[in-house]
Amino acid sequence: MTQTLTAPTSSPAGPAGLPAYDEVDRLAVDTLRVLAADMVQAANSGHPGLPMGAAPMAWALWSRHLRHDPAAPAWADRDRFVLSAGHGSALLYGLLHVTGYDLPEAELRAFRQLGSATPGHPEVGHTVGVETTTGPLGQGLAMAVGLALAERMTAARHPEITGHHTWALVGDGCLMEGVSHEAASLAAHLGLGRLVVLWDDNAITIDGATGLSTSEDQVARFEAYGWHVVRVLDGTDLVAIDAALAEAAADPRPSFVAVRTVIGHGAPGVEGTSKAHGSPLGAEVLAAAKARAGWGFGEFEVPSAVRERAREVAARGAAAHAAWRAAYDDYAGAHPESAAELERTWARGLPVDLGAALGSSEERTWPFPPENPVVRSSEEPNPAPTAPREWQDRATRVSSKAALEAARSVMPELVGGSADLAGSTGVDVPGFLVTRDDASGDLIAFGIREFAMAAVMNGLSLHGEWRAFGSTFLVFSDYLRPALRLAALMRQPVIHVLTHDSVAVGEDGPTHQPVEHVESLRLIPGLQVLRPADDAETALAWRLALERTDGPTALVLSRQTVPALPRDTPPTRAHAVRNPTDPDVEIVATGSEVALALVAAGALAADGVKARVVSAMDRSAYRPDHTLPRLSIEAGVTSGWRGLVDEAIGVDDFGASGPGPEVMAHVGLTPEAVVARVHALLATRRTPTRPNTQPSTTERE
Amino acid sequence: MTQTLTAPTSSPAGPAGLPAYDEVDRLAVDTLRVLAADMVQAANSGHPGLPMGAAPMAWALWSRHLRHDPAAPAWADRDRFVLSAGHGSALLYGLLHVTGYDLPEAELRAFRQLGSATPGHPEVGHTVGVETTTGPLGQGLAMAVGLALAERMTAARHPEITGHHTWALVGDGCLMEGVSHEAASLAAHLGLGRLVVLWDDNAITIDGATGLSTSEDQVARFEAYGWHVVRVLDGTDLVAIDAALAEAAADPRPSFVAVRTVIGHGAPGVEGTSKAHGSPLGAEVLAAAKARAGWGFGEFEVPSAVRERAREVAARGAAAHAAWRAAYDDYAGAHPESAAELERTWARGLPVDLGAALGSSEERTWPFPPENPVVRSSEEPNPAPTAPREWQDRATRVSSKAALEAARSVMPELVGGSADLAGSTGVDVPGFLVTRDDASGDLIAFGIREFAMAAVMNGLSLHGEWRAFGSTFLVFSDYLRPALRLAALMRQPVIHVLTHDSVAVGEDGPTHQPVEHVESLRLIPGLQVLRPADDAETALAWRLALERTDGPTALVLSRQTVPALPRDTPPTRAHAVRNPTDPDVEIVATGSEVALALVAAGALAADGVKARVVSAMDRSAYRPDHTLPRLSIEAGVTSGWRGLVDEAIGVDDFGASGPGPEVMAHVGLTPEAVVARVHALLATRRTPTRPNTQPSTTERE
Repeated sequence: MTQTLTAPTSSPAGPAGLPAYDEVDRLAVDTLRVLAADMVQAANSGHPGLPMGAAPMAWALWSRHLRHDPAAPAWADRDRFVLSAGHGSALLYGLLHVTGYDLPEAELRAFRQLGSATPGHPEVGHTVGVETTTGPLGQGLAMAVGLALAERMTAARHPEITGHHTWALVGDGCLMEGVSHEAASLAAHLGLGRLVVLWDDNAITIDGATGLSTSEDQVARFEAYGWHVVRVLDGTDLVAIDAALAEAAADPRPSFVAVRTVIGHGAPGVEGTSKAHGSPLGAEVLAAAKARAGWGFGEFEVPSAVRERAREVAARGAAAHAAWRAAYDDYAGAHPESAAELERTWARGLPVDLGAALGSSEERTWPFPPENPVVRSSEEPNPAPTAPREWQDRATRVSSKAALEAARSVMPELVGGSADLAGSTGVDVPGFLVTRDDASGDLIAFGIREFAMAAVMNGLSLHGEWRAFGSTFLVFSDYLRPALRLAALMRQPVIHVLTHDSVAVGEDGPTHQPVEHVESLRLIPGLQVLRPADDAETALAWRLALERTDGPTALVLSRQTVPALPRDTPPTRAHAVRNPTDPDVEIVATGSEVALALVAAGALAADGVKARVVSAMDRSAYRPDHTLPRLSIEAGVTSGWRGLVDEAIGVDDFGASGPGPEVMAHVGLTPEAVVARVHALLATRRTPTRPNTQPSTTERE
Repeated sequence: MTQTLTAPTSSPAGPAGLPAYDEVDRLAVDTLRVLAADMVQAANSGHPGLPMGAAPMAWALWSRHLRHDPAAPAWADRDRFVLSAGHGSALLYGLLHVTGYDLPEAELRAFRQLGSATPGHPEVGHTVGVETTTGPLGQGLAMAVGLALAERMTAARHPEITGHHTWALVGDGCLMEGVSHEAASLAAHLGLGRLVVLWDDNAITIDGATGLSTSEDQVARFEAYGWHVVRVLDGTDLVAIDAALAEAAADPRPSFVAVRTVIGHGAPGVEGTSKAHGSPLGAEVLAAAKARAGWGFGEFEVPSAVRERAREVAARGAAAHAAWRAAYDDYAGAHPESAAELERTWARGLPVDLGAALGSSEERTWPFPPENPVVRSSEEPNPAPTAPREWQDRATRVSSKAALEAARSVMPELVGGSADLAGSTGVDVPGFLVTRDDASGDLIAFGIREFAMAAVMNGLSLHGEWRAFGSTFLVFSDYLRPALRLAALMRQPVIHVLTHDSVAVGEDGPTHQPVEHVESLRLIPGLQVLRPADDAETALAWRLALERTDGPTALVLSRQTVPALPRDTPPTRAHAVRNPTDPDVEIVATGSEVALALVAAGALAADGVKARVVSAMDRSAYRPDHTLPRLSIEAGVTSGWRGLVDEAIGVDDFGASGPGPEVMAHVGLTPEAVVARVHALLATRRTPTRPNTQPSTTERE
């Protein structure tokens, strides 16, 4: 056996049971470099620098440490690999191609082209073998923490069939982003010993040397968190890398492997500089790089020796998978219920009794008769119930707690917690905290780390067994927005419990009063945003969130008490809660403003105005009645309502500190103000709409 | 002199030149505690825990280290104090009240009431002596970094009259938030030696002990960044605190002072627990706390001895201020131009030649005659200019670079940089980087730290002398959104350069293609969002951003080249760039889609349809022509347009990886698609709009 020629090796010995690294491994490393450079060159777009520098650590990991079966990319107990530095996608595609995943050469040639399986940044669900969507820096690392946490939690329940590692490759950018701090601190706290983070320490970012903007000691930083750290001083030394990976995998703490590399390794004139980061090498430099590597193969060619080595790798993976399959069959035989439960969660199946558990099914008795359509204002005492009373006057955050508790009673896979607001947001449900020593719990104290919470939720969800929820105040959804966007892009059914949903928060003032947030969440493609109006709608909202298996949900909930609304039928995403015959006006509202609308409607009735009131907890389900003047009420910015109604009542400026009801009055959210706005709207409708302008298009034609 | 009785002191000696801490200081500490507890109790809302635990460090700082003149809160060279743990506002209000700022007892009694000067969280501009708005955790620390950076930069230019410290008080939550990592790393890199961060290390958060969610060694972490660290093991020991503050102030590195405290100190039964964090103590516990402290004064009373001590403090501050004033007068005499420039920037004055510098003034020659209203598509070569050519076909990010460069030539106070995308976003203008050794530069390498960048910009702006800009890709505005919101709330005129503004970004794919972002920025109250269509509009956008002195601006700019549009008059916030007589349809567009609209309008003209095209770089300035069918085009989500037009063309789903023009075609943003949509819209207008529904309200009445 000869050693690799690209660099001196620190030891001739290979990992246990495997021969030492040899020429073929060297060739495999060069193959990954050349493939990446070829891809970027063909696309005339992309990032060759990271793949060329990180190819050795990637090959050592993928050929000897990563437990994977290219023929079965969905194997539940596979190791997970997260390319947190997602701009290095060409490296990942090269690894998948070489090791035998279903990613043929044609796809590499179509790198970054519309419709290819090789988009500019890795996209889970789009490319086989890609575990997470990455590119927004730092989030891959945080999702890896979630994946590793999922592994621990699964292993605590099914130890016989669970035992794999999570590996992440991060760049300088990932480590500069704040979310890396949140995620790394949490990983150490939870003792995620099967998490290994490889740092591609090339000291270069887009604008130049990292020394332009950072001086920190990353290794000392990770030690301060409680991580195990290993340094590899020569990132081309396969043996040193191998030893570091073996040590990292074995350590009971999460491990940080700092690998010193040269960005764009082997590209004459650009290696080691920011020029190698994000631009094609150009034909000339690419040719020179190939010549320097002694590359004697064609474009996109994988040398047969490398293919053969990759087949050995795949065979080892297949054998490991087969062994696991046998263990799983034993497990399923011994624990059929556990196995069935696992298989249900892998398939994102729901328990059949979900509706019953949440009290949101059609069978539920609806306590209010239709002939009693006027709601009580929240100040009035409740009338004595005339029918079995099930729904309560309470804050929807409290309703949410009840729904969550009920859901968890039938969905043990529903795990999560809060960014240090468990009690305030109503996720302080019965359960046990996951700790470093015991991962059999089902609640997670995420700490004051909203962004990492959301990214870890994404990782938990991606792992396969878990449905994840998290909570914070709605106003702080801004802190986690980048991860919520990624959840939507990845179609992960995570559930965000976002409470204290308007200026009614009161005394905490404008820094804590959401105004633009509900609307801004609605803008994220694929995010289901539900703002229920009362107890019954909150139960339905939870059901809709749980029944949705292909995308995230934001539950927007009140801090303050809201009355249980009168209904003769179960609520829906958007439905009339007051529906007089031949109405004069339609008022659509969401959340706590539905009760306000009902009180206003009652007052309007006294004025002889018949108002329909629609509760639209899912605004996208609201179908305006174009035959009626329409008015919306929501304690937030109005721009998204303007296309739906004639008049939008809301809050288009920051709030103020004061008791909630006073602040609501201050911004004009009172029954009196609503009544006045309705009368004004109807008055404009009784006279020609725009007396000084030309007739409307419809009238003209 | 006797020592404080609340705890053993480590040394009887006071700071240089001042007597040792004594009974009065002890009483002052208790006064701060009692005032805070009284405020929270009166409001029946708020956070007594931090004020009671941190009162000793606050008093030591404010009475002996903070250089401030309560009678002159705007003194330019005052020390800055940032309560990053903004929920402890009652402590800050107590300090301001006791030391003689214009915050009378009546305001303390009105704590958290609507219209009071004592809102739930500190608000700059609302309460005298409050330097920053805080509450969203972590951001105060990051703004303090900005304030400290501003001091260094000002000191580099005006050393004779600049030399003050920035102090921040942070809680556990601030340190768990990711932005603390970004900001702390940057502060160390820039060597901000006059920044001192006091950590209220009480080991309690809302949900309980910090041990629930974190295990890190904060001191080791800050050392890893390169900070000087000091520990105070007893947070009631005024002398130990004092020594730590003196050491911290003198060290050339930024200093982290870890002060071990007890949350809710002195409140029987709740101190040291999360119960003390965010709820009133209750009458009983409050009375017991007062009894235990031996408090013999009334509610909200400041003992006369404490008042007297505070007067001494204020007198020292006034003397320091007077000495500075004399130095300033000398400086202004010796350097009248420098002083005039400083005074202009303090007043947020603009150089009179700003319009001329940017080429956006009315006097500018407009090269395109009105009789040539059809724009070239971006693929066509430019025609030979028939008039002196000034505006160019180029990406608006490139136009922005030119405008920024021009603005900086007359506004030396315009400083900033990028989150590692200087070249891509066009802020790689001539200038010098601020470094640890030389702060006389005017460009800042923020690193891959979008959130800290935005918060540091806020700090730079709050300091008074500087106008700050920063840049990243539009899609990553999500990462900095919490700080942008705070900029709007604080009315700080920071400028965010946000480029790569649509799916036209192309190959980088959906993770890098903004879709919802322009609209979501428009939702933030007080944020000016400008998406210019070409070179001339970009110059105007910069001018509008700079002329705005009471709020932030987001400049939304294209990656791809856009043509210089035909105009016979200077552009405005929203104006017709094609305006045929008796138009059939109005097309409103922004940014790169204006050129698309013009090409479509040209094609429509061939079909006999006369289209007006409005470029609305500031959508809020667009006034729909209700006499015409209207259609909007913007490569982003459409919901905000629906109230303005009959038909909104946009992108309501995530994009895809591929060459930019192909992606634009993929999502339907081609001239052909626009033409078809216009014809379809006009067709619906030629037939009854809703044949199957009832007549419209207007028609009924």
